[in-house]
Amino acid sequence: MDNFHVYDTTLRDGAQQEGLNLTVADKLAIARHLDGLGVGFIEGGWPGANPKDTEFFRRAQQELQLQHAQLAAFGATRRAGVKAADDPLVAALRDSGAGVVTLVAKSHDRHVELALRTTLEENLAMVRDTVSHLRAEGQRVFLDAEHFFDGYRDNRAYALEVLSTAFEAGAEIAALCDTNGGMLPGWIQDVVNDVIESTGVRVGIHCHNDTGCAVANTLAAVDAGATHVQGTINGYGERTGNADLIAVVANLELKLGRDVLPAGLLREATRTAHAIAEVTNVPPASRQPYVGSSAFAHKAGLHASAIKVDPMLYQHMDPIEVGNDMRLLVSDMAGKASIELKGRELGYDLAEHPQTVARVTAKVKEMEARGYTFEAADASFELMLLEEVEGTRPSFFTVESWRVISESRAVGEETEATVKVHAGGQRYVVTGEGNGPVNALDSALRRAIARAFPAVAEFELTDYKVRLYDDGHGTDAKTRVLIETTDGDTSWVTVGVGENVIQASFEALVDGLTFGLWRHQK
Amino acid sequence: MDNFHVYDTTLRDGAQQEGLNLTVADKLAIARHLDGLGVGFIEGGWPGANPKDTEFFRRAQQELQLQHAQLAAFGATRRAGVKAADDPLVAALRDSGAGVVTLVAKSHDRHVELALRTTLEENLAMVRDTVSHLRAEGQRVFLDAEHFFDGYRDNRAYALEVLSTAFEAGAEIAALCDTNGGMLPGWIQDVVNDVIESTGVRVGIHCHNDTGCAVANTLAAVDAGATHVQGTINGYGERTGNADLIAVVANLELKLGRDVLPAGLLREATRTAHAIAEVTNVPPASRQPYVGSSAFAHKAGLHASAIKVDPMLYQHMDPIEVGNDMRLLVSDMAGKASIELKGRELGYDLAEHPQTVARVTAKVKEMEARGYTFEAADASFELMLLEEVEGTRPSFFTVESWRVISESRAVGEETEATVKVHAGGQRYVVTGEGNGPVNALDSALRRAIARAFPAVAEFELTDYKVRLYDDGHGTDAKTRVLIETTDGDTSWVTVGVGENVIQASFEALVDGLTFGLWRHQK
Repeated sequence: MDNFHVYDTTLRDGAQQEGLNLTVADKLAIARHLDGLGVGFIEGGWPGANPKDTEFFRRAQQELQLQHAQLAAFGATRRAGVKAADDPLVAALRDSGAGVVTLVAKSHDRHVELALRTTLEENLAMVRDTVSHLRAEGQRVFLDAEHFFDGYRDNRAYALEVLSTAFEAGAEIAALCDTNGGMLPGWIQDVVNDVIESTGVRVGIHCHNDTGCAVANTLAAVDAGATHVQGTINGYGERTGNADLIAVVANLELKLGRDVLPAGLLREATRTAHAIAEVTNVPPASRQPYVGSSAFAHKAGLHASAIKVDPMLYQHMDPIEVGNDMRLLVSDMAGKASIELKGRELGYDLAEHPQTVARVTAKVKEMEARGYTFEAADASFELMLLEEVEGTRPSFFTVESWRVISESRAVGEETEATVKVHAGGQRYVVTGEGNGPVNALDSALRRAIARAFPAVAEFELTDYKVRLYDDGHGTDAKTRVLIETTDGDTSWVTVGVGENVIQASFEALVDGLTFGLWRHQK
Repeated sequence: MDNFHVYDTTLRDGAQQEGLNLTVADKLAIARHLDGLGVGFIEGGWPGANPKDTEFFRRAQQELQLQHAQLAAFGATRRAGVKAADDPLVAALRDSGAGVVTLVAKSHDRHVELALRTTLEENLAMVRDTVSHLRAEGQRVFLDAEHFFDGYRDNRAYALEVLSTAFEAGAEIAALCDTNGGMLPGWIQDVVNDVIESTGVRVGIHCHNDTGCAVANTLAAVDAGATHVQGTINGYGERTGNADLIAVVANLELKLGRDVLPAGLLREATRTAHAIAEVTNVPPASRQPYVGSSAFAHKAGLHASAIKVDPMLYQHMDPIEVGNDMRLLVSDMAGKASIELKGRELGYDLAEHPQTVARVTAKVKEMEARGYTFEAADASFELMLLEEVEGTRPSFFTVESWRVISESRAVGEETEATVKVHAGGQRYVVTGEGNGPVNALDSALRRAIARAFPAVAEFELTDYKVRLYDDGHGTDAKTRVLIETTDGDTSWVTVGVGENVIQASFEALVDGLTFGLWRHQK
């Protein structure tokens, strides 16, 4: 849908969020989710400036089969005083394999002088030269006009000239960036109106949430004629974050009657937002508009009977439109279709076994209600599916018992773990040490199994995430542990849940080793 | 400032948030924080409908000395078919001691018929009679027109008639409620314009964030002439929450040049938001506009030198205006003034000991950077202050060592803890059992101390909160534990921090017992 762009920058601007660290594998996983939502463009990062992003674009060419989205590479205009064709950073954009390059350019005169330390004329030349060069090389070029709204206030003529220069050189979009995030909707509307009237460029909008108005600001720009919206999933981003792309799109489609995603895909919104939150390990905000787990929660109370008569009296839209649920059990999102799909991946055609599908669906719901999540923990899901389909769960060893001793004494702190395990017909009693209880348990278990299954020597724990998934008072908060294990070639994620972080971790460790051994056996 | 109302409903509508449970003591503490921020009105709850809220208003009359705010009691118009003077729920509002009653009334015809199950005429009579009765009893009355915007769409004439009826009976404010939260700013603006033109009532605005536009919607209403804004701290509330009152107020004051809080008090915003988050135990959102810990975080990188030349190139306002910080160390909020104040409470006039104040301030900053928080953990703060002022920390026992053993065997799971403690010249070795490691440690420690200090028999753990306070990948996430202990008369909170939840909990347990014994000794 080229007449209106839904442009996602989760992987670039979203990744600027404090505490958010994405591996290349994380980025590829997120890109697949974004494509499933049907966004038009996925800004993948800054190849050339960041080795991880260079690697992302390299692997994306081989590994990503995108159905809806095009990849966009983000980067800056050439350095002052060199030709675009000679600038290695521009070359990295050109060679990224991305069909679109989004060039960030300064449009605020003071930033040109103080941050770029060049002249206003040279900055225009940098814009012109870089856009022309990339266009000549066959790429589409979008412009991100950085600090545009502040620049417009300080020097309107220059800010507009930057846009016109890019357009004359072949840029398709001028995305006006409220980089510092200080705008309010009325102001955005006035500026976008003026830009369109004065320059005739095609306008995009890129907002941050510093005034709490990123979504409204984006809508105000669209109302004034912008036809390209940028944002991030879950509003990730620096400081207060970027415009929440799903809220923007849902408002456009459901409130303002515009079709901006491929038909039907808005219903993937809730699933997508939660799946991406599992990858980033940033706990999803339960109050998030449209997709939050509380977004359609109702304290029925006195109104229960009225809700029965007409639920729409108590909700602003039907949550099914965004794949959410009035009763908001996250478990309800594990639909039968995705379970059939997963079965097919594993070589089972479940479509012909509706009873099995129903049984697995019920089990997923029941386990998710207890705090498990299978969106991210594929390996735990597959083990569970195998158990339901084949009647037995793959098993290579049994744990007779485990024990963790953590102590603090004058000489310091010490933690050790002992596991008693049966594997390959033998009983092993192994003790491991570690910085903390989980570390020690991992060490003991791995060494115990290694005697019977040398393959585990190749396995390695590459990620460990802990989340308290309810914020309740008291001692009954539960812990969810996600563990990623790799054998060097592939990696898989398992999940454990419990009141005791040690026990939850142990569950995920056991699943991680079991899944790896099962895959090796195949 | 009666010409513009900043009306907080954290304690009523905010408390509707899933998972948020406030005790009466919590509500009193929050009311004090709200008053410190200078809001004009604090909606305390629904006396009569909810025993906890009745108790809140009773205690508020005795215990709250409010400097800036007035208390408002929330409640419904009388039941159909009875006189307001005979309705016990109306009587509870009248007798609440609150100077203001905020009456919620139906303004959507379908809600009158389906939820209230009465006629449109009787609903108007209910509004008229209840407002008149409370006015005659000497209370100010504000009207919350529930589902107003949906009602206006369905039956504009009736929705407006509800407002006019309330005004003729003596209501001062008609707060238009977007109860289902589906509105966008332009729509709000049009409706508020029409209401003011058509009825002449004084308009207030009450928004929810279901479209992600609660703040912008509130500003749109003000732009159209509303002079009363409702919202909650941290945007707490049902579903996606209410309008974030601090973002609304900061935008009004800093972006739109209106004075809506007493001069200077907006600088309390960040402190207030965080202190209230500690009371609710809902982790503060780091990306929250204006007050989030990330709200003014900068990844300086290439721009460091430009930031030095002019920091305002990279921020939309000076964070000091809301008590936040560009470098965003939460620790910087523990200012010297509050430390002097705390010292005075403890009987030390620190104003004359600037070196001590500087030393304590530095220590607070250093410890907060490591994850401690003293906003909520008064007792840990006092122990630290005593140490700095008197040169020694109160100490009643010393812990030689502790050990926790957690094991899982065929017969089940079991956890025990052993502490070796010196107290009153004796050495005690005591083992306790529990459901989990912390429970077991608490039991062992308490029993060991009880022999030397019988006073601890009266102590009881009343609350235990755990928070992972960074969401980093890997095993290095830290745990912060807050423990509340009571002796039956008063209660106090202590804090512990560490990579190991067991160790962090033990630290807070020891401080909790020490503080209680120190207070008993005095």
